[in-house]
Amino acid sequence: MKILNLLVGGPIENWPQELKENTIEGPWIGVDRGSLRLLERGITPIVAIGDYDSMGTQEFQTVKERVKDIRRAIPEKDETDTELAVTVALNEFETDRLDIYGATGGRLDHFLANLFLVLKDRYRSSAPKIRFIDRANTITFYLPGEYEILKEPDKKYLAFIPLTPINHLTLVDEKYRLGHAKVLYPISYASNEFVGEKGHFQFDSGVMCVIQSKDVK
Amino acid sequence: MKILNLLVGGPIENWPQELKENTIEGPWIGVDRGSLRLLERGITPIVAIGDYDSMGTQEFQTVKERVKDIRRAIPEKDETDTELAVTVALNEFETDRLDIYGATGGRLDHFLANLFLVLKDRYRSSAPKIRFIDRANTITFYLPGEYEILKEPDKKYLAFIPLTPINHLTLVDEKYRLGHAKVLYPISYASNEFVGEKGHFQFDSGVMCVIQSKDVK
Repeated sequence: MKILNLLVGGPIENWPQELKENTIEGPWIGVDRGSLRLLERGITPIVAIGDYDSMGTQEFQTVKERVKDIRRAIPEKDETDTELAVTVALNEFETDRLDIYGATGGRLDHFLANLFLVLKDRYRSSAPKIRFIDRANTITFYLPGEYEILKEPDKKYLAFIPLTPINHLTLVDEKYRLGHAKVLYPISYASNEFVGEKGHFQFDSGVMCVIQSKDVK
Repeated sequence: MKILNLLVGGPIENWPQELKENTIEGPWIGVDRGSLRLLERGITPIVAIGDYDSMGTQEFQTVKERVKDIRRAIPEKDETDTELAVTVALNEFETDRLDIYGATGGRLDHFLANLFLVLKDRYRSSAPKIRFIDRANTITFYLPGEYEILKEPDKKYLAFIPLTPINHLTLVDEKYRLGHAKVLYPISYASNEFVGEKGHFQFDSGVMCVIQSKDVK
């Protein structure tokens, strides 16, 4: 499986341990301050996306000197830096999975823009490829169908979060089950758990977000 | 205006400065570990909500000894601890505003359950009373109508985040404007800004979340 990683500029304290310890295999795309943080850790992103707005001129200069492929999102345009990065990743690198780090812990308008990105027409069919990962959460997305998912060893909780109206949501064998539920508005069915190592669920329409998480102090 | 504060158990590092410095006027309701954190800071919550699950037995004992009014949410029930706290706050204390702290920075299934709480039938009419506050964000909610909002002095960014389909969304005088937009899915119009100290917006249907935010490192 071809995996591409993307680092956005959110607080470092929210990074998962593997990222702090620099043990995630590349390639990487950097977004805004994310490019600089990759460079500081000895990783040269294959593409850096961002503008002067979010970085100082000197910082931007550093990125320009060391990264071959620099793209700038236009702040006034109806596309965020992260969206441009996702577009580049999906269209130019044909990745099987896109793992996005640094998208949580700071501004919540940014986080929600990222979370809701998969609902846009141009990204929706790629939703299953996209994951957001931080120290406490792994966020994944599903289109209508029947699924078997695996418990992550370090996570305790499992949540099903319809981001749109969803029909016939069935949680087959989780700790708290649902049968053919009709969901009208976004809701987070939080604090569910796997029974064993696998879980099964299905639904007929809409977009489902699934989060595995653990407590942090 | 009668203000009631609620402290949930999310990471302390995400608290706003006023909470860290203990300068927010009470009364307080504590949820889960939030009750303990209030007690540690010399604040006795008027109600403590939670169960053994989220706190150690000793910690729960401490809360039991010092708080008169203890309520326990039932984990299996279709109501989270925070929801029970919001129900108690709105129904029993007739507050004009409910400021919720500690709801961000940890588990995102929790955060999203809190964010989407206002969409539920039993809370929707109270949505305008509810705010979520952390070190970088103030989250508010609006029902259909015309509004004038004020810039918070320490915040730079303004975001409009329809949580449901919304009709005729008009951003009248913000940096980036919209005219009678029809929104079909949740979206975060992030990184907008006030022009001056006030902003005006209006919409015809659905529930709008508005976030004022600032960058954090």
